[in-house]
Amino acid sequence: MKSLFFILICTLLHVSVFAELSEKQIPLKWELGYAKTVGESPSKWIPAIVPGAVQLDIAKAEKYEPYFYAEHWKDYLWMEDQFYTYRTSFQKPELASGERFIFISKGIDYQFKIFLNGIELLSQEGMFTPVNLDLTDQLKPNNELTILVFPAPKIYPKPVDRSQASHSVKPAVSYGWDWHPRLIPLGIWDDTYLEVQPASYINDFHVNYTLNEELTNAKLDLQISGRNLKDLPFVWTLKDDNGKEVLISKGKTTLDFPNPQLWWTHDHGKPTLYTSTIQLLDATGKVIQTCESKIGFRRIKLVMNEGAWNEPAGFPKTRSVSPAQLEINGRKIFCKGTNWVNPEIFPGIITRQRYDELLKLAKEANFNLLRVWGGGIVNKESFFELCDEKGILVWQEFPLACNNYPDDAHYLSILKQESASIINRVKKHPSLAFWSGGNELYNAWSGMTDQSLALRLLNSQCLELDPNSPFIPTSPMMGMAHGNYVFRDLDNKEEVFSNMARAHYTAYTEFGMPAPASVEILKTIIPKEELWPPKAGTSWESHHAYNAWVGNTWLCQDIIEDYFGVSNSLEELVANGQLMQGEGYKCIYEEARRQKPYCSMATNWCYDEPWPTAANNSLISYPAIPKPGFYAVKNACRPLLASAKLSKFKWTEGETFFADVWMLNDLPTEVPSGKVKIKLVAGTSELVLLNWDFDAMKANVNQAGPTVRCKLPAWSTDRFKVVLEVEGHPEYNSEYTLAYQPRTVERKRTTPVMNQ
Amino acid sequence: MKSLFFILICTLLHVSVFAELSEKQIPLKWELGYAKTVGESPSKWIPAIVPGAVQLDIAKAEKYEPYFYAEHWKDYLWMEDQFYTYRTSFQKPELASGERFIFISKGIDYQFKIFLNGIELLSQEGMFTPVNLDLTDQLKPNNELTILVFPAPKIYPKPVDRSQASHSVKPAVSYGWDWHPRLIPLGIWDDTYLEVQPASYINDFHVNYTLNEELTNAKLDLQISGRNLKDLPFVWTLKDDNGKEVLISKGKTTLDFPNPQLWWTHDHGKPTLYTSTIQLLDATGKVIQTCESKIGFRRIKLVMNEGAWNEPAGFPKTRSVSPAQLEINGRKIFCKGTNWVNPEIFPGIITRQRYDELLKLAKEANFNLLRVWGGGIVNKESFFELCDEKGILVWQEFPLACNNYPDDAHYLSILKQESASIINRVKKHPSLAFWSGGNELYNAWSGMTDQSLALRLLNSQCLELDPNSPFIPTSPMMGMAHGNYVFRDLDNKEEVFSNMARAHYTAYTEFGMPAPASVEILKTIIPKEELWPPKAGTSWESHHAYNAWVGNTWLCQDIIEDYFGVSNSLEELVANGQLMQGEGYKCIYEEARRQKPYCSMATNWCYDEPWPTAANNSLISYPAIPKPGFYAVKNACRPLLASAKLSKFKWTEGETFFADVWMLNDLPTEVPSGKVKIKLVAGTSELVLLNWDFDAMKANVNQAGPTVRCKLPAWSTDRFKVVLEVEGHPEYNSEYTLAYQPRTVERKRTTPVMNQ
Repeated sequence: MKSLFFILICTLLHVSVFAELSEKQIPLKWELGYAKTVGESPSKWIPAIVPGAVQLDIAKAEKYEPYFYAEHWKDYLWMEDQFYTYRTSFQKPELASGERFIFISKGIDYQFKIFLNGIELLSQEGMFTPVNLDLTDQLKPNNELTILVFPAPKIYPKPVDRSQASHSVKPAVSYGWDWHPRLIPLGIWDDTYLEVQPASYINDFHVNYTLNEELTNAKLDLQISGRNLKDLPFVWTLKDDNGKEVLISKGKTTLDFPNPQLWWTHDHGKPTLYTSTIQLLDATGKVIQTCESKIGFRRIKLVMNEGAWNEPAGFPKTRSVSPAQLEINGRKIFCKGTNWVNPEIFPGIITRQRYDELLKLAKEANFNLLRVWGGGIVNKESFFELCDEKGILVWQEFPLACNNYPDDAHYLSILKQESASIINRVKKHPSLAFWSGGNELYNAWSGMTDQSLALRLLNSQCLELDPNSPFIPTSPMMGMAHGNYVFRDLDNKEEVFSNMARAHYTAYTEFGMPAPASVEILKTIIPKEELWPPKAGTSWESHHAYNAWVGNTWLCQDIIEDYFGVSNSLEELVANGQLMQGEGYKCIYEEARRQKPYCSMATNWCYDEPWPTAANNSLISYPAIPKPGFYAVKNACRPLLASAKLSKFKWTEGETFFADVWMLNDLPTEVPSGKVKIKLVAGTSELVLLNWDFDAMKANVNQAGPTVRCKLPAWSTDRFKVVLEVEGHPEYNSEYTLAYQPRTVERKRTTPVMNQ
Repeated sequence: MKSLFFILICTLLHVSVFAELSEKQIPLKWELGYAKTVGESPSKWIPAIVPGAVQLDIAKAEKYEPYFYAEHWKDYLWMEDQFYTYRTSFQKPELASGERFIFISKGIDYQFKIFLNGIELLSQEGMFTPVNLDLTDQLKPNNELTILVFPAPKIYPKPVDRSQASHSVKPAVSYGWDWHPRLIPLGIWDDTYLEVQPASYINDFHVNYTLNEELTNAKLDLQISGRNLKDLPFVWTLKDDNGKEVLISKGKTTLDFPNPQLWWTHDHGKPTLYTSTIQLLDATGKVIQTCESKIGFRRIKLVMNEGAWNEPAGFPKTRSVSPAQLEINGRKIFCKGTNWVNPEIFPGIITRQRYDELLKLAKEANFNLLRVWGGGIVNKESFFELCDEKGILVWQEFPLACNNYPDDAHYLSILKQESASIINRVKKHPSLAFWSGGNELYNAWSGMTDQSLALRLLNSQCLELDPNSPFIPTSPMMGMAHGNYVFRDLDNKEEVFSNMARAHYTAYTEFGMPAPASVEILKTIIPKEELWPPKAGTSWESHHAYNAWVGNTWLCQDIIEDYFGVSNSLEELVANGQLMQGEGYKCIYEEARRQKPYCSMATNWCYDEPWPTAANNSLISYPAIPKPGFYAVKNACRPLLASAKLSKFKWTEGETFFADVWMLNDLPTEVPSGKVKIKLVAGTSELVLLNWDFDAMKANVNQAGPTVRCKLPAWSTDRFKVVLEVEGHPEYNSEYTLAYQPRTVERKRTTPVMNQ
C-alpha cells in the first residue's frame, strides 16, 4: 500500500517529468502568480513546473493535500477561476548573422496572451495550436517573457457541469464526469522552450503518399514549410527499419517508392516504420539542419459491413447503415479495442513513460484499436509515436463530447484553428485509423444533428487536410451502438447475456462493466474510517462509487449482492464485483465477435482512468494497474479461442444448463481442425459435457459448434465454471464463472467462496 | 386528340422557345454538324436552334419521326456517340474605348471546347458552369466561333444503363430510367449570346443577409464581382414589393435593414420579395450599368422532429435520426410536396412558360415543397424565380442519383467546379430550402456511404459557399423513407393502407402510385393497332407500362383487375387505374399528416414527366396535364380537411366496415370547433354512420376523432364511398372510394360502374 501511495504522490508532485530537450532548445525556469481579476498583479510568485498545470504548482507551493485522497479535490475548485501569470527571464543570446531566436510552446491551456518585456506578442484561444514566436527583433539585453492564462472558459456560470465547456475547444471531461472529478487544468501543458534557429529553417515537413490499388507502389510527395527555404538544396533519404537507405532524392519532392513494406497492426503483421530524413544544405553543401520523421505505409478505409447492404428490407425504406468495417491494406479486420481516456487529470504531467506502460498493456490485451474519446485531450506526440511502433490503431476524436456545440461564429473559428493544428500533426502517423467529430453528439443528451455546423466544419477540415483518412461525425453512427454500462439493466433488469444476444449492430464502440478498484488502491484514496461499509456522501462518492451515472453506479453493490448475497467484507465485495466485470466484458467481446462479419468492432468503455477511482468501468486502475477484468478481456480478445455463448449468470440446482460452443478466429491465416472438451467444474467436481471436433477454419472466419446441455447437479458452492479445453492448445482454452444456487439448502454467506 | 398531338409536335420542334434577350445581348445564328471522330470535319451543316439539343436539330433537318411516338426514340440512339460542332459567324463590332466583347453561354452540355477563328479559347467539362469569354483582343473583322461538343460521357461501353454516368456530373436520368427513355441530351442548353460590355462591369452580385434571432433585423452584406470595379461609386437601393424604396446606400456594402417583411411559403404567409438594385457610376456620376435582383428574407432550418430525441430507447443504443423537420422563420411546418423531374427530355427547350404552368399547378395542389430529384438537371433561373414568387420551397439535389460516384480525382474536380456554379447561382433564391447530395446514395443500389468523398465534398462546398442553408448528403437519411411505389406490395401483397399505418418515419420523401395516362394521351403515343389490349414488347413497354421497375409496372393491370375484374375496355382499365392512384396517394399523404409532428414531410414520386408515358407514378402527364390523382392529392393536401383512416381497399357485403375519423390541420391559425357527418354512399343509397363534434384546434395541430363502424349492407355496385361532410364548410369535405364485393351475387363485369 505504501508503494502505491508513493506512486500517486510522485505523480502529483510530478517529479522528473521534464521532456527531454534537444541541444538547441533552451529550457526556461518559470514562476507562477495568480490574481482574481485580469488587471491585477499577482501578490506573490511560486515556482512553476513546465509542462504542468497551475493547480499542481499551487498545491506544491502551498502544501495542499493530494487531490486524489478523500475529498481534497474540492479544495482545488477555486483555482479554475483565477488569472494566472507565468513569468521567466533570460538574457539576449549571441546570435550569428541571420540566426533567429524563437519561443516555442507545443501547448498552452486554454486562453492566453504572451508578452515580451510588457509588449503583447500573441493572444490565442486554444490549447492544441502550438506557439511559435520569433523574438529576435524585440530582444533586450535582459528579457522577461510572461504568459497570462485566463480562467477556465465557461459559457454560463450555472449549471456547474460539462455544458459550461460547450462553447470552447476545451476537453469537456475536466468539468466533471461520472468518473472524473471537476478539476479543470490550466497552464502550459506541453514542451515549451527557447530555440536558436539558423536563418533558413524547416519548421515542418510531411511526406504525403498515395499507394496504388495493388499496394505495390507508393508515390511520395514531400511537403516542407519553413523560413527562407527558396532554392536551398536538400537531400531527402528514406531508410528501412534496418537502417538501410532505400531512397535518396537531391532536391526532388516527388518520388516513386516501389514495393514498400506495409504497416500493419501487431495482430495482422509488422508495424513497419521507415525513417525519412531531410538534410537542408547551404549553397556550399554544408548541412544547416537535419529533420527526421517516421513513415508507415498503409491504406485504411471504412467500408460497408458484410450483410449491411441487405438492410433495411421492405418499404417504406430508409438508408442503409454507416460503414463501420475497418479495412487495412485491403484486409477487413475485426477491431478489438477500448476507449482511451486521459491518463491524468492534468495532461501537462503525462509522460512518454506513462503512455508506454499503458500501450504495452493494450497490446498485451490483444487490442488493435484505441478510440481516443472526444471528452479528453488529443494526446501528445509520444502517444502516437508509440502507437505507430506497437501497431495499434487510433480512432481520434476531436474535443467535442456530450454537449450541443453551437453554430456560433467565434466558436467555429476556434474549432477551425484547433482542428487544423490537430489534423496536421496527427495525420503523419500511420496509427491514425480515422477521425471522429466527437462523442455521442447525435444523441439526445448532446442534441447536435447532421445540420450542426461544427460537425460539418470538421468533416470539411478533414477532407481538405487529410482526405485519405475516413471521417465520422460522431460515435455512434447509424448501425453502431453505445452501452449498456452495467451487468444488468437498471430499469428492466435484463442481463448482459440476453441483451447482447438480441443486439444487432455493426460496431459496439462503447460498453461498460463496472468494478470496484482493488482493496489496496481503495486504501490509498479512502480514509480508513470510511472504508467499510461503503456509503454515499463520503469519499466513495467523490471517487464515483455512488451517484456517478444512474442507479447505484459505479459500485453497484445492490446488483453484486443480488447474485452473491450480502458481502461480509470489503474484500468479498471487491472480489465479486471484479469477477462480474470480467464475466460481463467477456460476454460482450465474445458475442460481438460471434456476430462477425456483420459486426466488425468492439471497444469497451473504458480502458484507463485519470485518477484512482473507487469503482469504474475501467480495465486499468490509475495509473496503470490492471484489474482482474483486464485479463478476462485479454483472453476474450485472443485472435483464436474456444468460446461459450451463455444465456444468463445465475443457475439453480436441477436446472438444465446450456451453452453454445464456438471457435472464434480473427487470425489472418487458416486454422487446422481440432478438438474442444467442454466441462463444468465446481470445486473439485468435474462434469464433461462434450468433446467437439471442429473443422479447419479459413482465415478470419469463426465456427459455430454444438449446444451443450446438462441438468445441473447438487453442488455446495455459490459458483461454478464452464471450461473449454482445446486439445494440444491450452493457449486457446477458455473458462467462465457463473453463480450457482443449490435448491434446498439455504445459502450461508459465511461459507468460504471458491477461489476464482 | 389532335390538339394534344399538336402540342407535342410543337414542343418537339421547339417553336418559339427563344429566351428573351436584353438589348445589349446579341443573338447568334447557329449551324450544327457532326462526325464520328474528334478530328473529322462534319460532312454537312444543318440549322441549329440555341438553346436546344443536337438531337432536335437533326430530327428537324432530317425529318425524323417524333421521338415520343411509338418506339421512334430508338432511332435517336446513335446520336449520343457523335462529335458535334456548332458554328456561328459575326463581324467585329464597333467598340467604344475600353468596351469588351463577351461570349456568354449559361450552359453547354456536357464536354466541349470553344474556338475563335480556329484558336481554342476554352476546354470544359460540365454543363452547369456558365461560359464567359472575353473575345475582344482576338477579334478579326470577320469571326467564326465554333463549339466542339463531345459524345455523351460513358465510363464503360457496357452495361448500357445509368451506371455509365457514374463518373460524370451529367444527370443520370437520360441514360434510361423506369419512366425515361434512353435519350442523352447534348449541346447548348441555356441562353447563349454575345454582349458588348462597358470597361467597368458587374458580372455578378449577391446580397448576403443575416437575420437576428427575433427576425426583426437583417444585416445585409453586398458582394459584387466584376471587372475594373475598384473605387467606382455605386448606389444600392432596396425596394419593397410595392416599389417603395426602403433602403439606399451610396458606396457602403453593409447595411442594417430593420423589420423586413419575411418571405413565407404561400400556405403560411406571403412570399414577399424585395428588389435590390445596383447602379454602377463612373467618376462623373453617370450610370454605367444597372443590375437588379430579388431578395426574400427568411430563415430556414432542418430541426429535430418532435419525439425523435426519445428514440432509440434502451441499450445498446445507436444514434437518433437525422432531422427532417423544416422550420421557416421559426415556425415548424409540415411539408407537402412532390418530386420534380425534368419536364423535358431535352432541357434546352424548357421555357419559363412550361415552368409556370407546372408551378401554378403545384401551388394549386397545396404543395409547399418540391424535391428537385438528383437524377435530373438543376433547373434554369426562371424555375427558381417562379418558385420565389409563388412561395414554393425547393429542396435542390446535386446531379447524383443511384450510382456509386467514385473517389476519383478527376470526377471530384469536376464536381467541385459544377457544385460551386450551382450553389452560387441557386443560393440567391429564397425558395431554396436545403441542399441534398443526391438520390438514394446510401442505399444498396447506389453503394455510396458516409465515407464517399463526393458527398463529403458537397457538404464542404455547401458549408463554404452557403452556410445558412441546410445540407443532407442524400435522401433518404436515417429516419426518412422512400417507397413503396405500388398500391399493393409486389412480394407480400400488403396494401398501402396497412403498410402506411405500420410505418414510423420522420419524412416520406418518395412514394409512388402508378396510373395509366388518359386515353386521349395514350392515343397520341401508341399506334392504334397496339392500343388494346396493352402488351409488353410494344409501344406500351417503350412508354414504361411494362418491365419498367419490378413486377408489371407501371401499368399494373394485374393488381387493378384483382380488385375490379378483367377490364372490358381501355377506358375501363384507365379509369380503375387512375382511381386507385388517387385513393392510394390520398392514403399516404393523409396518413403522413396523421403522424405529425413526428412526421413532418410527404413528397410523392413523382410530379411531372419528361415525355408522355403510358403509365407512371406521375400526377401530371406530359407536358402539364393533370391526372385525376392530381386532384385527389390536392384534396389530401388542403391545409384543413376531414380525413378517414382506412384499413383496406376492398370490402365485402356483411363485413364490419370501420374507419378512424380525423381533422387534419396544418393551418397557422386556430380552427373553431365544428361538426363532421360520416356516411357511406353506394349509388343512390346513403348510410349515415356518425355525427362527430370536433373541438377547436390549435394552429398546426390535428385532432383524432372516433372510430366509426357498420355492417356493410347489400349493394349492387362494385364500389362505395366514404363521405365526410363538415357542417357549413364543404371546402373541408372529403370522400374515399373503396371496392365492394356483394356476397352472394356473382359480380358481372358488364354492369355499368359507378361514376367516380
